[in-house]
Formats: sequence, structure tokens, C-alpha cells
Amino acid sequence: MKIEAIDLFYVALPEIKRAADGSQDTLLCRVRADNGLYGWGESDSSPLVSLAAYVFPMSHSNIININEALLGETIDSVEDVHRLRVKAGVYGLDVQQLDHAVAAVDIALWDLAGKHLELPVYKMLGYERAYPKLPYASVLFGDTPDETQMIAADLRERGFAAAKFGWGPMGHGTAANDVALVAAAREGMGQQAQVMVDAGVVWGDDDATAYDRAVSFAEYGITWLEEPLLSDEVDAYKRLTDRKPPVPIAAGEGADFFRSADDLMLNGGIDFVQIDVGRTGGITVCDRICKRAQELDIQYVNHTFKSHLQLAASLHVFAGVEAFQLMEYPAGDSPLVLGLTAPTGLPVNAEGMVDCPETPGLGVDVNLNTVREYLQPVKIEVAGKVLHETPAV
Amino acid sequence: MKIEAIDLFYVALPEIKRAADGSQDTLLCRVRADNGLYGWGESDSSPLVSLAAYVFPMSHSNIININEALLGETIDSVEDVHRLRVKAGVYGLDVQQLDHAVAAVDIALWDLAGKHLELPVYKMLGYERAYPKLPYASVLFGDTPDETQMIAADLRERGFAAAKFGWGPMGHGTAANDVALVAAAREGMGQQAQVMVDAGVVWGDDDATAYDRAVSFAEYGITWLEEPLLSDEVDAYKRLTDRKPPVPIAAGEGADFFRSADDLMLNGGIDFVQIDVGRTGGITVCDRICKRAQELDIQYVNHTFKSHLQLAASLHVFAGVEAFQLMEYPAGDSPLVLGLTAPTGLPVNAEGMVDCPETPGLGVDVNLNTVREYLQPVKIEVAGKVLHETPAV
Repeated sequence: MKIEAIDLFYVALPEIKRAADGSQDTLLCRVRADNGLYGWGESDSSPLVSLAAYVFPMSHSNIININEALLGETIDSVEDVHRLRVKAGVYGLDVQQLDHAVAAVDIALWDLAGKHLELPVYKMLGYERAYPKLPYASVLFGDTPDETQMIAADLRERGFAAAKFGWGPMGHGTAANDVALVAAAREGMGQQAQVMVDAGVVWGDDDATAYDRAVSFAEYGITWLEEPLLSDEVDAYKRLTDRKPPVPIAAGEGADFFRSADDLMLNGGIDFVQIDVGRTGGITVCDRICKRAQELDIQYVNHTFKSHLQLAASLHVFAGVEAFQLMEYPAGDSPLVLGLTAPTGLPVNAEGMVDCPETPGLGVDVNLNTVREYLQPVKIEVAGKVLHETPAV
Repeated sequence: MKIEAIDLFYVALPEIKRAADGSQDTLLCRVRADNGLYGWGESDSSPLVSLAAYVFPMSHSNIININEALLGETIDSVEDVHRLRVKAGVYGLDVQQLDHAVAAVDIALWDLAGKHLELPVYKMLGYERAYPKLPYASVLFGDTPDETQMIAADLRERGFAAAKFGWGPMGHGTAANDVALVAAAREGMGQQAQVMVDAGVVWGDDDATAYDRAVSFAEYGITWLEEPLLSDEVDAYKRLTDRKPPVPIAAGEGADFFRSADDLMLNGGIDFVQIDVGRTGGITVCDRICKRAQELDIQYVNHTFKSHLQLAASLHVFAGVEAFQLMEYPAGDSPLVLGLTAPTGLPVNAEGMVDCPETPGLGVDVNLNTVREYLQPVKIEVAGKVLHETPAV
């Protein structure tokens, strides 16, 4: 089949709050083939900046847009999906945003090729079966320990056996307040649950403070301390992990390309690598990272704060690896989380686990009504020429 | 003083050719302060994608645009320039394009602050004096060895004692053709000149071929072999440099942020680190890389394929380091190289060297007539709201 159209949709809630909540907007990509099949993908990034990467005018041979690389191309096989990802990368070699932007179309191409080949994506990646994952609810800390405890108690009531608390006040008050936040999360979730802490890069390159907090938090039996430091500060990660902190260290959502993740694994000494399929170049690149993590005996976990479309794409990458057991599961109430897929997203099953879809492609479909309801029409003109105008949903 | 306006100008030649020639378009940034002073900067990237990074709607607390971070801010000191670069990075933490985009305004802020403090930028970076650099002409290989030899002979006639030849047919034909191209460059430049070879990442992660070419090229006494491999393939760089190839290895233009350059230096084993001030986050970040290169005893060289405004910004970063002697000097005839500065750019002096300006800021000014002549008006609308429209020059 041939790629006939790449449709981009910027969807957003009417009001965007200044919180670390990635489920307030998104960029969706629909690829349509000449045989009527289509695939969907999503990028976790600034929708406008990523959209621009599909339509910008050529600057030279290494700055050519994604549409130019892919429209009219042939896609019939897994090899074609790989080939097209490489081609988009060559065309956009000097476009920094490429990895975030191309993720959407890469995911859509796996979905499309899976429908064509009648295979779920995880099988196209070479795995024979998929293993259910334990979902951990991903939420922000409350503004206070009390509020955090209430959020945790609510999650426990909803049946979550694991939850991650992040950002908000963590690292912005006293050390005692940081500890009180973690204690409250543990209190609310109960002693049996897995509790993760996401520090939201708050200590920058200050590995000493990160180490001190890791020691303090260890008392509450947390599964990991996530992103205590900036992604860019791999040396600081190394200083931290060389001291063998009493809780595992997680990072990776800031990695935009393969080497950036590999660098954190090889040289940062992290225990969990958290990869966002909507940022790190799509399924093709994340599959490479997942296989690298297996070689290095590092736990791969998805980073996902978008819709269940994105969640499905995330899951297919590591569904086939039994040893990678945890799965980030957005638990907020934005209509752009569960509302973007139809008829359902990825539900938690009776055993409290999430199963990977066995239907062709990603195994979820997009709810066009939600897309229409939250659509933000975009128009981009350069030198009087319209380079992009939002297509019909 | 306060930042009153950030003006962005997309300028481009009427026809863009599909060659690895970065001087066909650019994104200029003018920062105006409330006291009438202004500064200029330039980004080496897709102008439209970088422009979008200044104006996109907020997605959440880590995806906030550059204008929002900087407009209305105070800038009176070197510390303010650093503080504002950090602030833009925090606001745009999850915007991949941030480093390419922010480079333009970061350079402009150094220019502006330099004018305010009446200091050339290199002095603001802590250096007492500037050392003249040996410019090497930066050109593309001809389509054939013969054409390459003519290009080289022309450069020699124009007085260049050093030149780099890159991209074009290199790596796309036979091994013998690759060698013939290098031989032709040497023949045209003569035996006394420094000749560099830029392979334009053509061998991907194939370090074995890169090594073989390094051995073949060594006969022609080249100063370095540049980017034989993709930036992302740091392991392949390590395999290559571990074998101690007979010519020095250079890379770095693909590094978008500090760690990416540091990774190539620490783990890739490169001998020259080539940094583009218009890509790698501006003068602030490049200064950090330059100081790191001094610590590691690696040669820092600018990567520049834009105007002499960019060239001046590049030069201030390492002008104060006597040991870093070479300077990439765009030698093409695009009106966006020399034509963008007025009354002059950075001329080659009677000794064949380039002096760093001693006047405040970058020490060059922009030719507004050129900006007007090649201006590409841009208009971006989201949900019916105009987020950007090209301002008056």
C-alpha cells in the first residue's frame, strides 16, 4: 500500500493549567493508505512545534520535513516501517524536534502495518506472546502532605496496587516537607502497595541532595526515586548511583533519542529506564532501547502521560518481555486520557493487571467525537503560502 | 534594562537547493530593551520550527514558550544572561527544539548585555584577551574529483591556508572515489595547506568503514576526519577511536545540548569537538562546552555555516583560548553569509587570520536591507488566534 495522507490534529482542553499534567493537550497523527486502511499515533510534545516539523520549508538537504519524507511511500512490511523511520531521520537530520515529532507518525505506521499484516504490534517486534503488566497510577503530589494522602487513599480505593507521585511541591520546600509528602503517599496507599516518587528533576545537578532524599525516602519502602536530577546531568547521575543509594534510581523520560537513553543506562547507572514512545522517536527507537535494556539487565518502563492510544503504543514495545512488569498508567480525569479511544482504552483486568491487545496494530481506535470536540484548528503560512491547515476529522 | 520585544525574522533565498548548504536561509532574533539598546542572534535550524518554539501555546508547566519566559525580564549583568538561559530551559524542559531555538535569543542577550556593559562578549566570558584564529574555508566537495580540485585551487588562490571539504559524493560511491576526492582536495590546496574532510555522517554506525577511510586518507595528511558516523552512535565512535586511526577524528555539530557534546568527548574519544553556537543552546551552553574541552584537553572548534553574525557569536566563545587555533569560516557566496552584517563581517586580516571584535557585544551589526530583501513573512494561527506575525524590520 502507499501512504496517501498524514493528517495532524492538535487537540486541547479549553483551559490549560500550569501544572506538570501532560494530559491537557496532544498531537494526533492519522496516516491513511491508498487501500482505505489507516493508523493512528500520538506525540508527547508541544503540538504546534511538532506539527511544524511535518510542514516546514526545506532549508537544505538535512532539513527536509516529515511529510516530504513519507507521503507517497510504500509500506507493506515491518522492514518498510524501519526503512521509513530511517528516511525521516535522514531528511530531518538537523531538525532537533524530529524525534518528538516523528514519534506520532512512526506509531501510526506500526498501527497501519499491523492492520495490513493482521498482527498486533508486539508480534511484529519479534515477541511470541504478551505478558500482563502491573499498572501504577501516575499522579501529581497534592499541594500538602494531607492532600497527598487523600489522593493516595482514593487511588487505593480504586484498586491500584501501585502508584507514583510526582512534581508539585517536591523539592520546593524543606527537606522535612519532602519526607512528609512521601510518608503521606505511603500512608494513603497502605503498606502493601508499591509507591514510586518522581522528583521532577528538581535537584538539577545536585547529587548530594538527591542522595540525602533517597536515604530519607528509603524508610517508606519506595520502588524507585525518579528523575532526582536533570537528564542532561549524566555525570551527576553517576556520582549519585556510585554511592549506592538505598532506593533504586529511575530516569529516561527526558531522553529524546536512542543514545540519550543509552547514555543514562551505561554512564548514569540508573536502575529503571523510563521511555516515552511519544517522545523518543516512536516505537521503532523505543524497541531498540527496550532490547538494549534487556542486554544491560536494566528494567524498562513506559513513561506515559497521554491517552490510551499512547498507552497502547507504549505497552506493545515491552509487552513481550516477562521481566519488565510495571507499567505507568495515567490515572487523571482529563477527557484526553480515556476519552480519546473508543470503545475502550486499556482497562485494568479482574486481577488488577493490564493486558496487551491481541488485535491487529495497536489494538485501540480513536474516538473521533473527542477529537472534534477538543480540536484546535491550526493554520501556518510562510511567504503567503499556506503550509498547513487542519484537515477534516 | 527590561526586555521589551523579541523580534523573529525568517530570511531565505528565493530558491532553496537540496545540498548540504546551511547558508540558504536562517532565523534571526532581535531583542529590544526598554532603553533603546538591542542585540542580535541567529539560530542554525529550521527557521519555522524554531520560531514556533517562541510562540506555541502552553501544554503544561514544562512546555511554555520562550517569549513567555523572557519578555519583561530584567537584564543588567552577565549573571542575568545566565539566569535567563536557565529560565528558558526550565519553561521549555519538554520542548525538544528548545536548544536550537533558544540559541538565537541567547546570542542576542549576550550582544545586548555586552552593549550595556560596554564589553566584548569574550571578556564577559572571563577571558582577558582574544587570540586571532586561522580560518579554514568550509565548502562542499565537488560532484567529481576534478570539480573538487578546481574548488580547492580557487580557495588557495583566494589565500586560504586551510579548507574543509564535505558531504556531496563522499561515501556514496566507491572507496576509490572517496580517496580520489580527498586526493583532489589536497592537490588543489597544495602541500602546505591544512585540509579537513567532512564525511557528513555517511557511514552511520559502521566504524569499520570509517576506520578504513581514515587509513586511506592519512596519506594526504588531513587535519581531521569529521563526522564519519552519526552523532547518536557514540559506541561506534568509541570503537573507531579505540583503534587509534591515523588521522584525528572530529564531531559535535549534531550535539544539541551540553551532555551530548560531553558524551562525544568523554565516551566517543574524539579529538576535535565542533560546536554550533546556533544549535547547541547559544553562547551560554557553548561556553560551558568550551571550558569542558579545555579540562579534557580536546580541541574546540566552531561549526558555522551561517552569516558572519553567527560567526562572531561562535568566535567569542573560544577567542580567549590561545590553544584553540582553528576556525570554521563559511566561504560560499550566498548573500546570507557576508551580506547579513554591515558594514562588514569578520574579515581575514593581512596575516591570514581572523581577529575577534573588541567592540561591545558581538561587535558586528545586522544589515537590515538584506533582512528586508530576503524576508519570509510568517503567520501562525491556533484556534483562530494569531500567535505570530512577522514584525516590522
